[in-house]
Amino acid sequence: MTPFDPATLRYDANGLIPAIAQDQETGEVLMLAWMNVDAVAQTLETGRVTYWSRSRQAFWVKGESSGHVQRLVEMRVDCDRDCLLLQVDQTGPACHTNRRTCFYTAVRDNDEVVTMAPGG
Amino acid sequence: MTPFDPATLRYDANGLIPAIAQDQETGEVLMLAWMNVDAVAQTLETGRVTYWSRSRQAFWVKGESSGHVQRLVEMRVDCDRDCLLLQVDQTGPACHTNRRTCFYTAVRDNDEVVTMAPGG
Repeated sequence: MTPFDPATLRYDANGLIPAIAQDQETGEVLMLAWMNVDAVAQTLETGRVTYWSRSRQAFWVKGESSGHVQRLVEMRVDCDRDCLLLQVDQTGPACHTNRRTCFYTAVRDNDEVVTMAPGG
Repeated sequence: MTPFDPATLRYDANGLIPAIAQDQETGEVLMLAWMNVDAVAQTLETGRVTYWSRSRQAFWVKGESSGHVQRLVEMRVDCDRDCLLLQVDQTGPACHTNRRTCFYTAVRDNDEVVTMAPGG
């Protein structure tokens, strides 16, 4: 086994790595957001998923204001070390539209179909 | 319903959008790769998942050389329109290391643990 060092991940030109959050029970993909090296370390340390908000340029402790927290169950690193998969326990909706997942719009026969109402 | 136009997605400064591939049967997250606007259109048109290779700067029809193709079952767009979720039928391993998924390394107690052997 190798000790895990967040600095050994491959970050983009902005110092960020994409992180996919997946409901560890249902397997549903909830969202994708970004982390910097400190957000990765903080997430592992606290068990509370913490992203880096590109719009606010600040740490984003998921659910801090909404209560819709993500508890980290397991972090996975991909083969290229440039993407993370977070298996999480999600309290309430993951999406700011109040839906369980951000991926509620499907492309079907070249139309956009909203598959889930807010609250769903 | 709104007709889907790949040009309405939000691409990054390099004209790319991240695309998560998920096994539509098991829910397993297989990989993350990138698409440009033409790769999105081509994937929808052909039903064969086609990425944009950042290293080769060329279209990457998944499985073209390996035979490990991804057949698109459904494309999903996230709330911010800056990420795609591809629900796919994956033939063979998705990862170039010959594993089913690229996310075979777990972080457990600050150690990296390989959870799956090649071929698994």
